[in-house]
Amino acid sequence: MEKKILEIPYGTRDFLPTEATEKRIIETKLARLFGSWGYDEVVTPTIEYLETLTKGSSRTLEPHLYKLFSKDNRIMALRHEMTTPIARLMGSRLQGRELPLRCSYISSVFRYEQSQTGRQCEFYQAGVELMGSGSAAADAEVIALAVRSVLSAGITDFKVCLGQVEFVSGVMEQYQLAEKDCEALKEAMEKHDLVLLETLVDDLQLSDSAKKALKSLPLLNGGPEMLEQAREMALNARSRRALDNLTEIYHLLEAYQVADYVQFDLGIIRDFSYYTGMVFEAYTPELGFPLCGGGRYDNLLADFGNPCPATGFALGIERVLLALERRGDGLPETPKDVYVGYAPSKLEQAVKKALELRQQGKVAELSASPGTEQEAEAMQQGRGYKDLLFIS
Amino acid sequence: MEKKILEIPYGTRDFLPTEATEKRIIETKLARLFGSWGYDEVVTPTIEYLETLTKGSSRTLEPHLYKLFSKDNRIMALRHEMTTPIARLMGSRLQGRELPLRCSYISSVFRYEQSQTGRQCEFYQAGVELMGSGSAAADAEVIALAVRSVLSAGITDFKVCLGQVEFVSGVMEQYQLAEKDCEALKEAMEKHDLVLLETLVDDLQLSDSAKKALKSLPLLNGGPEMLEQAREMALNARSRRALDNLTEIYHLLEAYQVADYVQFDLGIIRDFSYYTGMVFEAYTPELGFPLCGGGRYDNLLADFGNPCPATGFALGIERVLLALERRGDGLPETPKDVYVGYAPSKLEQAVKKALELRQQGKVAELSASPGTEQEAEAMQQGRGYKDLLFIS
Repeated sequence: MEKKILEIPYGTRDFLPTEATEKRIIETKLARLFGSWGYDEVVTPTIEYLETLTKGSSRTLEPHLYKLFSKDNRIMALRHEMTTPIARLMGSRLQGRELPLRCSYISSVFRYEQSQTGRQCEFYQAGVELMGSGSAAADAEVIALAVRSVLSAGITDFKVCLGQVEFVSGVMEQYQLAEKDCEALKEAMEKHDLVLLETLVDDLQLSDSAKKALKSLPLLNGGPEMLEQAREMALNARSRRALDNLTEIYHLLEAYQVADYVQFDLGIIRDFSYYTGMVFEAYTPELGFPLCGGGRYDNLLADFGNPCPATGFALGIERVLLALERRGDGLPETPKDVYVGYAPSKLEQAVKKALELRQQGKVAELSASPGTEQEAEAMQQGRGYKDLLFIS
Repeated sequence: MEKKILEIPYGTRDFLPTEATEKRIIETKLARLFGSWGYDEVVTPTIEYLETLTKGSSRTLEPHLYKLFSKDNRIMALRHEMTTPIARLMGSRLQGRELPLRCSYISSVFRYEQSQTGRQCEFYQAGVELMGSGSAAADAEVIALAVRSVLSAGITDFKVCLGQVEFVSGVMEQYQLAEKDCEALKEAMEKHDLVLLETLVDDLQLSDSAKKALKSLPLLNGGPEMLEQAREMALNARSRRALDNLTEIYHLLEAYQVADYVQFDLGIIRDFSYYTGMVFEAYTPELGFPLCGGGRYDNLLADFGNPCPATGFALGIERVLLALERRGDGLPETPKDVYVGYAPSKLEQAVKKALELRQQGKVAELSASPGTEQEAEAMQQGRGYKDLLFIS
């Protein structure tokens, strides 16, 4: 046998029995939570046409896609997230539905990336999209639901960092930066590369106070008092509107009883270029990357022929599982109730007993072969069943 | 906007809100059922190396695979079923676990095929593998669990057709057919092409009684009495052992109280070449193709370095959904409890009410904007909520 057939592709993983069970428990909880907030699940194909996925996304996306050819030689790719496929649905089969429309999903997505624990190239996301409302109420609902999602998965020590891409754009606009300079600064901020940011800012023809303001963008994080500090840097209507929007959202998050989990980080630049308003990411001390993230994207749906504002978030299932594991308190294992063993020629009675136990709602595993009671007991204990039923 | 970005690839589909909810309900039921019989879920990557997927499968598989290149230029493909990836797991990370091992999965799989309703190129399968036991008890357990799976999905009018590939091979062996003739006859049987089968048989140098026996293979279907008829054709030990095996399995299916759903069809040839013993397919009048199918495959695990017998089945989720739809009694829709509307400036109270309702286990959708009670009532009714709560 060639060893190669036992390998799996770079950046993919297997979920062994306990891991897959934990994954299903969390997904089932999230599906129920999303449903209870009025979000209806949708499922889209794993494969989409390349032109669908790259519509509305930055040019840096394409090298990260898994591409393949259709039988008629069109380029397809494995979906890299679910917001774009749902935007496509809104332009096709969901076109004409009464707005706002609330959709949820739990799906695997694919991105060629440098892979590490909790950051695989194929990974599972659960999320929601609230489409057809531009209100702060919609943004607050989505952020509050993200907080509830993380809590329902069993994680309590986390913070949501909330920003607004229009604040950053407004500040850059007030200093009349060229488009390409804006892009370069935002890229440095997205990478959290403060040294690069300083170098780029120093190369610009700007006043010292302007340079100071731009360099301080990634440092604008903290509680609600930080919004007041930011207000001093907001010299035009665009940046002030962004701060007003955050104030309104925060106020609603207090009504949602989740404000304690929220702080501001005005330097947040999310990795998809379609965001147009508030953006957020949730962090827990156990992980060096966000548990979930999202934001408002008011232009993407127009790209698919159904112009309307929208907001949403996605949560990384593996990241939640990893955070739980690193905290040392994973999910409780599914209870295994009864192992049913039997002596030779007693299989039929054992079958009937196993059926009865399952009808009572119990997990019952039936031995695949007859044996002694001692053998059955060893199996029961090795497999972690609470009880043994032996038919002799 | 280019219309092309709204298209989805050939043979794929979207599940809209109600469809996706039905899919999740069925999948959750099946996961619970499999768990209650002692099967632990596993999840494997969507993408595998080509050499993994084609190991143990017939050469006719490759044109049906969705292929793509890894970054280091190895050929990968989207998994076409789950039995092979689980066999790979048994040769790697599940190697050394105590046998028998019971695994289940609920996954999407991919095959380039002529697509039609209920037969997509990307489709969802739920199934189990019982590995490490060659007993008829293991086969009966898997068939009984398949019957319970179909029943738990809400379908009651179906039949399981049970065959044994060793019976067919044994009959062909007793007439000393060449390997290539066996393959050709089996292919005609798999395609249910009786005309082709007759032509092929007539071209062979055989006695009239031998020809008659070979032509009658696809006609050997019916109740347990049919096994006696088949026994007259079983002239060697191989074909007689196959019939003894079916007799023993059927006897156990009576203990499992599912024998009423089972009939024999000794002409069944399943589409994967790895089957070595009993094979079965379940049919319902609403569909022209099987709801589920499976069988024993005692050699596949050896191909992955962990030689042990195994048996299993897979059920098509979309096929179950389609059969339910064609019967006209789909699953009940998830209850939608309360639509919460509010007058201007009453959002915060509405948020609190919605949270309370959800804490009581209710599905509560909160309006994304204020309005009149009449507007809220229209939304409540349009969205199918039982009750309206309006905060004025």
